[in-house]
Amino acid sequence: MMVANHKHAFSQILDPARVLDDPSSLHDYGRDRTRVHEPAPSLVLFPKTTEEVVRIAEYCARERLPIVPSGGRTGYAGAAVAAHGEVVVSMGKMDRILGIDLESGCVEVEAGAILENVQHAVAETGMYLPLDFAARGSAQIGGCIATNAGGLKVIKYGMTRELVLGLEAVFGRGQVLRLNTSLHKNNSGYDLKQFLVGAEGTLGIVTRATMQIVPQPKRLNVGLIALSRLADTPPVLKEARLRSLDLTAAEFFTGACLEAVMAHLPQMRSPFPIRYPCYLLIEIDEGEHDGQLTAFLEHVSGIPGIEDATVATSPQSFRELWALRENISESIGTLGLVHKNDIAVPVSSMPAFVGALESLVRERYRGLDVLLFGHIGDGNVHVNVIDRTSKDAAGFETRVEELDTALCELIQSYNGSISAEHGIGLLKKRLLHLQRDPVQIELMKAIKHTFDPANIFNPGKIVDW
Amino acid sequence: MMVANHKHAFSQILDPARVLDDPSSLHDYGRDRTRVHEPAPSLVLFPKTTEEVVRIAEYCARERLPIVPSGGRTGYAGAAVAAHGEVVVSMGKMDRILGIDLESGCVEVEAGAILENVQHAVAETGMYLPLDFAARGSAQIGGCIATNAGGLKVIKYGMTRELVLGLEAVFGRGQVLRLNTSLHKNNSGYDLKQFLVGAEGTLGIVTRATMQIVPQPKRLNVGLIALSRLADTPPVLKEARLRSLDLTAAEFFTGACLEAVMAHLPQMRSPFPIRYPCYLLIEIDEGEHDGQLTAFLEHVSGIPGIEDATVATSPQSFRELWALRENISESIGTLGLVHKNDIAVPVSSMPAFVGALESLVRERYRGLDVLLFGHIGDGNVHVNVIDRTSKDAAGFETRVEELDTALCELIQSYNGSISAEHGIGLLKKRLLHLQRDPVQIELMKAIKHTFDPANIFNPGKIVDW
Repeated sequence: MMVANHKHAFSQILDPARVLDDPSSLHDYGRDRTRVHEPAPSLVLFPKTTEEVVRIAEYCARERLPIVPSGGRTGYAGAAVAAHGEVVVSMGKMDRILGIDLESGCVEVEAGAILENVQHAVAETGMYLPLDFAARGSAQIGGCIATNAGGLKVIKYGMTRELVLGLEAVFGRGQVLRLNTSLHKNNSGYDLKQFLVGAEGTLGIVTRATMQIVPQPKRLNVGLIALSRLADTPPVLKEARLRSLDLTAAEFFTGACLEAVMAHLPQMRSPFPIRYPCYLLIEIDEGEHDGQLTAFLEHVSGIPGIEDATVATSPQSFRELWALRENISESIGTLGLVHKNDIAVPVSSMPAFVGALESLVRERYRGLDVLLFGHIGDGNVHVNVIDRTSKDAAGFETRVEELDTALCELIQSYNGSISAEHGIGLLKKRLLHLQRDPVQIELMKAIKHTFDPANIFNPGKIVDW
Repeated sequence: MMVANHKHAFSQILDPARVLDDPSSLHDYGRDRTRVHEPAPSLVLFPKTTEEVVRIAEYCARERLPIVPSGGRTGYAGAAVAAHGEVVVSMGKMDRILGIDLESGCVEVEAGAILENVQHAVAETGMYLPLDFAARGSAQIGGCIATNAGGLKVIKYGMTRELVLGLEAVFGRGQVLRLNTSLHKNNSGYDLKQFLVGAEGTLGIVTRATMQIVPQPKRLNVGLIALSRLADTPPVLKEARLRSLDLTAAEFFTGACLEAVMAHLPQMRSPFPIRYPCYLLIEIDEGEHDGQLTAFLEHVSGIPGIEDATVATSPQSFRELWALRENISESIGTLGLVHKNDIAVPVSSMPAFVGALESLVRERYRGLDVLLFGHIGDGNVHVNVIDRTSKDAAGFETRVEELDTALCELIQSYNGSISAEHGIGLLKKRLLHLQRDPVQIELMKAIKHTFDPANIFNPGKIVDW
């Protein structure tokens, strides 16, 4: 059937003003933050109610018309890309915050609610939504759930999955799942909401969610440790746990990352008089007990690789230390051609893995630099491969594609993850077999078929179903 | 085929000394803590390796011989009952603790490892496994995972699900899933381990697990608040969250529960000079900040229903306050015929729900008492229905079966859970339709069929597949 017919049909379901096919909308809503695939959806729909989503799904199941569920489009894996005439179903007009229940400890929202708006609404009540990452101003809760978003607070509060208490989702041929509400405990049969979390829109569309909220941190403090080698970070983390520090972040970056930040933002103050091979930023909630972080840094100063350390002494120095970490991604972007990977290995394997990675690149990819930073407390590192001199973007892409394969093989040998936070989407599909054996991939396909017999929800993402 | 033939076949797979059919073993391994169904397995098998579990499953799939996966048999829902000639596969001889990784924050165990043994091994390293409940001395990690066990520490650390990092399981016709290892982040396709957690053995047998371990609490303190009515507990919990207390437990019990404890254990010291309608026990980690709990109790003393409060002043009074809560279940058992339900409603609905429940019993079940206690911080309450005078156990069972239906209908109207921690198993199967609509039950059946096409894993539990 022609696009015009579909448009007409959807205009019976939705206000026609919420059925778009102008080139600008198709372009904007047909992609996420990746730039590998050319966006080419056929239509963009903006439902306002779950009932409208149901009717869209019913129609698409009848017509075998593929749907790309769409949130804030801040993803890095291409899961929200519509490159083959799909219908984009944007949740952007289902963005209400439905209620906050302080006694039960939860906030209920429509899936299109923007993360930052929900954070603010919760903060106004005196509570805290412990989900936070750089794209907070655009990312939607439904997208956070579909990608099981991580971010800056995982070390203390877990991934998005651990914050989802209840879900409403449309799946199959337009059936609705209403799963749990605000209950923290409900062992009555399979926990079906777990299937939707992290499924990247391939099992259905999340339309509402109830998220756990928690007490606000009491008083955060941050310190920066300079180390002569990465191998000394796991022992520091181990000591932090053994001392029962209330760790709220443990971020790591190499000296090359700091150099990039200082070059890009020369007004920033260098944390130490000289440069070191790597840095570990530790944030803890000191509560009422001032000086805890200073005492800890003194305690670990005997670990051989620890060269120096500094603790924030004011709100300004707190922000300055965090700014070193937060400006890495942007600063690296100015160095040349950049290719990003978001991977994880067990924390205890991190030093050996990084050593092997650096050897691999030095030996087989001359001219490329590896800049590493990330959430080391979770074993999660962003691997940035950089060509500082070449202008040949296509040649670079070919090289890093080959390097990605070698990287993922290396990750496999360290029992790591080829995608710690970002998901598989389109971009890591070809490498999934390095993470998942045939038994697992067959099982994933069977589950997909169970939830989505018409194969309308984000087909072609994660694997070819 | 005859049992003798199966016995012969399994004796080719396992050392024959680990293939049992003596009446005592069949009786002991054919049941959990429930006493509703008569145990009647055909054989009890004790594999020692995953490979042996694989070969057992392959054989059972070929012969369509149902398996009951079996842990410490401490469940309260009948999920580990073998009442129809099933083969019990006990994990009791796969009980090794394989390793503790302090840098990655995890412990790896075989599924049959006993919870208390794992707790101790972790504690010896200076870390903490935050999974704890009364059956710790018998319960096995695999059973904790299969039932998504809760317990005393959920309010701070979550259910078992949130502690499972990696899993190995045998499913289908003997395939093995090796899912994640010690990674805290791994967004590469569906998180298949979530499907096994809480599935009560219906999707396969967990053979190994990697569990998250966390820093030990610094210094716990406990207080007991006396209230004139239940309705005042949610505001106290709300205040605790708004003051960012590090809540590690929030337990509640009615005056009748305390009376039962004092009658059963007259040597125990009464916490207050007079009796009150209900009590709220609050445990927090005070860290370095002595007096936090006392300050909080002063802060909430203005809430109208708060009658009195006391804080532990020594290790002994800490234990004494906890003993009031911990002895309830045993003490209630001495009062007469007892029927237990483990349910949840949103914390904010708890007062209205309890009011409605008490009216229901008063009006329609004359002669029965309701005694309530439980993990109110999670919205989880144990509903104990008691007949203090009758000796007619059969008549009592008939009455409480009818009452259970009315109770679950009431729970449904409050968006609650008919089984917060214990699962569905055999005992709550007939009530599952009050929790799950037909769409959800059909989806659960389809998932069961996907994982277990031969229908050999715990058939007849949760629903009739």
